[in-house]
Amino acid sequence: MAAGENGIIRVGVIGGGQLARMMVPPAIHLGLRIGVLAESAGMSAERAADAVGDYRDPETVYAFAETVDVVTFDHEHVPQPILRELEARGVAVHPRPDALQYAQDKILMRQRLDALGVPVPAWAAVADERELQEFVEAHGGRAVVKTARGGYDGKGVRVVSRADEVRDWFTALAEDGRGGHLLVEELVDFTRELAQLVARRPSGETRAWPLVETVQRDGVCAEVIAPAPFDDPATADEAERIARAIAEGVGATGVLAVEMFETRDGRVLVNELAMRPHNSGHFSIEGSVTSQFEQHLRAVADLPLGDTAMTAPAAVMINVLGGPTEGPMPVRYAEALAAHPRAKVHSYDKLPRPGRKVGHVTVTGEDPAAVLAEARAAAALFD
Amino acid sequence: MAAGENGIIRVGVIGGGQLARMMVPPAIHLGLRIGVLAESAGMSAERAADAVGDYRDPETVYAFAETVDVVTFDHEHVPQPILRELEARGVAVHPRPDALQYAQDKILMRQRLDALGVPVPAWAAVADERELQEFVEAHGGRAVVKTARGGYDGKGVRVVSRADEVRDWFTALAEDGRGGHLLVEELVDFTRELAQLVARRPSGETRAWPLVETVQRDGVCAEVIAPAPFDDPATADEAERIARAIAEGVGATGVLAVEMFETRDGRVLVNELAMRPHNSGHFSIEGSVTSQFEQHLRAVADLPLGDTAMTAPAAVMINVLGGPTEGPMPVRYAEALAAHPRAKVHSYDKLPRPGRKVGHVTVTGEDPAAVLAEARAAAALFD
Repeated sequence: MAAGENGIIRVGVIGGGQLARMMVPPAIHLGLRIGVLAESAGMSAERAADAVGDYRDPETVYAFAETVDVVTFDHEHVPQPILRELEARGVAVHPRPDALQYAQDKILMRQRLDALGVPVPAWAAVADERELQEFVEAHGGRAVVKTARGGYDGKGVRVVSRADEVRDWFTALAEDGRGGHLLVEELVDFTRELAQLVARRPSGETRAWPLVETVQRDGVCAEVIAPAPFDDPATADEAERIARAIAEGVGATGVLAVEMFETRDGRVLVNELAMRPHNSGHFSIEGSVTSQFEQHLRAVADLPLGDTAMTAPAAVMINVLGGPTEGPMPVRYAEALAAHPRAKVHSYDKLPRPGRKVGHVTVTGEDPAAVLAEARAAAALFD
Repeated sequence: MAAGENGIIRVGVIGGGQLARMMVPPAIHLGLRIGVLAESAGMSAERAADAVGDYRDPETVYAFAETVDVVTFDHEHVPQPILRELEARGVAVHPRPDALQYAQDKILMRQRLDALGVPVPAWAAVADERELQEFVEAHGGRAVVKTARGGYDGKGVRVVSRADEVRDWFTALAEDGRGGHLLVEELVDFTRELAQLVARRPSGETRAWPLVETVQRDGVCAEVIAPAPFDDPATADEAERIARAIAEGVGATGVLAVEMFETRDGRVLVNELAMRPHNSGHFSIEGSVTSQFEQHLRAVADLPLGDTAMTAPAAVMINVLGGPTEGPMPVRYAEALAAHPRAKVHSYDKLPRPGRKVGHVTVTGEDPAAVLAEARAAAALFD
């Protein structure tokens, strides 16, 4: 697969959001062909979208797959039966369904991480309010409840002290007919959140970016500081060891993002996995020799991976959440670009909506504090 | 124009080559809409090409212009009458025809540079072999003859010792009916070639990149070393002063590339102008905070310009000329990317042809000699 027919490599991305959009620039530079199956017209990846359709419709996905050499994803929502049928038809799919299932189902993920010996918060799969209440009482009277499937950016996550606070979720599971469980986890007393990104090729080559610190607001990533500042470099080594063990253990291909908690006693616990480019890696567009988007393309096409070293001592990425009330981000460019000529401004070409990720700003430089201050100031001009 | 209707800014590029192609990534990141009028299907900028047609056909160009907020260029070949009619119709065109004429006609350019007091080689516009022979004899028995229009990459340039060596060009000029002249210049005893890029907005803001050294082979740019190594920084200051004076003096908008000779006695003489992103600026994709392609878009949209500082002490760009005999550059990725994980490889998605610019490789780093060696080694894998 390293070079398709006539030397042309065609990558197909299912999902038309900003992650697909940001795969297009490195595809252009590398001379790879990229196609996007977008859910609807006018999505963020519109430039590259040469097909619009429902990723839950098998025939739509099969027809799209016939136009490319490898299928990959902007999100984790394509149903397993469709993915397995693609493989049965001989289509290269990365990450493979056997790996992707762990990013699709948080309970499967917890089971697999336990089997791999990876440190995670105490957890249980609970089938009803009684089981949930037992867990809550055994873990200090409060816990985090998550739906196993479909959550993102704080959706599908609640902190509860009483089991009846997620009665609606149990009701929905019962009505689903397939039965099922909720995931409950101890409320970790963490000092901060971290993210470790790695990329892995089907042939096994794996490269890790520097560990980053992520700052969430209302369950949504707000800021990323690269590299994560550390008193003890052993933590970064441990985070990389864990992420590589997971990538290898689940057979991940493409970019794998491992979100982690750092605890007061200096341990790291795995919180979530994503098997695609991830918000915590947007800094890498300018901040790394090889961005997560370029690396994802190289990895899923089974091409040799690029260097992941930082291009500067510090990089900070700030999300633009919501965006200017009067329109997409360019309405503020006259002011923002003049005030911050060093800031790299990214607009996803989305209309403003409260809390929506409409773009981000990255600044790189020598001094971490100055870089953080400038990135925040530039991003604030889009509020 | 800083934000078009509904905050959406639409830039239209006439010409579908690699310069248009490399404008697409920054347009995606900034959330600008970009359209390309390509000469034919399957060109380098195919991804963004939403129109295919002849730039010499007025109605094709006018129809394309109606779909965008500003028109700019991948080349300098659009006829002046079409450009002037666009402006008469109220279309924003950058660079404006009044400026672009100096990049279209080398004799007009020489006249204007003389008027601006910019140092250039001795030159004359010659109407026949007798006038040319007089110039040659007055300048040491050899001189450089150029067609005023249409030359690029060494085409339309000959070194002669006798006037009859360009008899075919005089014959063609006579048959053209409009009459006309050839440009003849002294053969400059230069130590090396340099290029100074600047970008200028319609509102006047101008920013310059560091001066670079360019190495030509057979009249084609082969290597670019950024910044140009200097014993005396006064030369770089002088080059920037000259380029800014030209940008201001001709009213250039967008990127202006000024190719220069450095003479044995330490002077710089202007050789050629280009009013668009230029091969000597490809290093800036990774090597500058703001690449020439992003800056060109910002400039022609009259948005504030970005910082042009280097991202590393040294950057070297090597052109891939001709390319692998067996197909486009990705046929060599398995070998080349594995051997050079730090190299940034750019393929223009062109089929190989002797001498054709099919891509380039850039390496950035601390040590200029090491960076040069690595860039050359990586590019050589595509020979």
